[in-house]
Amino acid sequence: MSDYTPPKVWKDESESGGQWASINRPISGATHDKDLPVGKHPLQLYSLATPNGQKVTIMLEELLALGVSEAEYDAHLIQIMEGDQFSSGFVEVNPNSKIPALMDRSGSEPVRVFESGAILVYLADKFGKLLPASGAARTEVMNWLFWLQGSAPYLGGGFGHFYAYAPEKFEYPINRFSMEAKRQLDLLDKQLAENEFIAGPEYSIADIAIWPWYGNLVLGNLYEAAEFLDVASYTHLQRWAKQLEQRVGVQRGRIVNRTWGEDGQLAERHSAADIDAALGKA
Amino acid sequence: MSDYTPPKVWKDESESGGQWASINRPISGATHDKDLPVGKHPLQLYSLATPNGQKVTIMLEELLALGVSEAEYDAHLIQIMEGDQFSSGFVEVNPNSKIPALMDRSGSEPVRVFESGAILVYLADKFGKLLPASGAARTEVMNWLFWLQGSAPYLGGGFGHFYAYAPEKFEYPINRFSMEAKRQLDLLDKQLAENEFIAGPEYSIADIAIWPWYGNLVLGNLYEAAEFLDVASYTHLQRWAKQLEQRVGVQRGRIVNRTWGEDGQLAERHSAADIDAALGKA
Repeated sequence: MSDYTPPKVWKDESESGGQWASINRPISGATHDKDLPVGKHPLQLYSLATPNGQKVTIMLEELLALGVSEAEYDAHLIQIMEGDQFSSGFVEVNPNSKIPALMDRSGSEPVRVFESGAILVYLADKFGKLLPASGAARTEVMNWLFWLQGSAPYLGGGFGHFYAYAPEKFEYPINRFSMEAKRQLDLLDKQLAENEFIAGPEYSIADIAIWPWYGNLVLGNLYEAAEFLDVASYTHLQRWAKQLEQRVGVQRGRIVNRTWGEDGQLAERHSAADIDAALGKA
Repeated sequence: MSDYTPPKVWKDESESGGQWASINRPISGATHDKDLPVGKHPLQLYSLATPNGQKVTIMLEELLALGVSEAEYDAHLIQIMEGDQFSSGFVEVNPNSKIPALMDRSGSEPVRVFESGAILVYLADKFGKLLPASGAARTEVMNWLFWLQGSAPYLGGGFGHFYAYAPEKFEYPINRFSMEAKRQLDLLDKQLAENEFIAGPEYSIADIAIWPWYGNLVLGNLYEAAEFLDVASYTHLQRWAKQLEQRVGVQRGRIVNRTWGEDGQLAERHSAADIDAALGKA
């Protein structure tokens, strides 16, 4: 049994947040004054290629692949391990200090959009793509989009943190969140056994939201947990993950705002040519 | 240090989920055949008065208070500790087996709506209330609605689980999730210092989503954590929580689908008179 007894009033005495300790705080708000850069396009994205970041760059590249030229964007790098999300400029766009955050400067007043799910809905409705305008098909996409936004915290902040990042391997949290991760994988597998895409026969923002988390997970790109979670057993989810991996929008979007790993990655994106060059297609 | 080493492949050997162990499973889908009840109104809600459940009953009662008579609904009780969410009927409405779930039978084909956030957007857009139809005001409501859906898992599945429900008091997870809960409370407090409601000067589905979690928390209705998290120090959040507590829609909606605690609560709601009776107003 644990011999820990919580105090009457919690105090921030913990330096033990593991790999992410330096960016977790018990208060919100800016730590320093600094403006954000602004590029030439109407859409200004401030992000990093975590799964939540990938959602938005994939969405923008899918829109461009569909011929929506107004979706041209500048993608600026936010180094979360260095505290860029606590600048006064970033906090103005997203007071929650999380990537991704978007400013739409196409109208008379700039509009801030934060939370990756809200950004997907915003862009889909703005351009009339990847989310039906009304009816049961729209509702089903929204059902699964909200499913992702409420479920991924158990995969990322729960399973991923305790399996991959926490300073020790704690048995109870690992079991708790592995159970939930397996249930989520099984749910998606069953849904994709009956449907080509997450919300039915049409590719949508539900796929774009879910692929960076559960697609990357079953493709072995997250937490080195492929064997532990036996991801090979979710065959329909594997089929879908590989199918989406072949899409031009996914291939282009996933490499934006990356600073780790292999070649073929891109810290910032200011034009299509930046991605062409990174992919060796220039 | 922990002396636990995760196995190569996770296996469900844990019986130690604490208070909720019986309803956590590593697979999805139905465990038994049973149809859901269907009442007389077009809107059929299947739910329980957890914070996520309260969002939807408060929304429906706010709509009725605004004079939207088409928002009349039957609220059926789903006893999650008894596994009602694993019936074949429930899984058809929500394959994720979580409350709340809604069937809209007002059209030629019934439409399923699941995830509390999706239900709020669906009802708001269906009736044209509590969410602006377009523009920056709509975007800001959606920003905060998605903020809630991605943040509450850290409060509920993180802080609440480890502080109140887990079989032992584990120090590291309690510190991790207390840090995040405090940051969220501070963020809301700062937002409500500058704004009457969450997304600005108008009451919206962002307030309706956030109050059942963070309003109940700072009013001392969740996890018996008021002293531990020093909720009294968030004075602007307290002001807002108490202000909303006085609304007719909140007072009526929060008591629906409850089976615990005091008098003045209601297991099922099939007409306004059911709530009048429970509140002693009949």
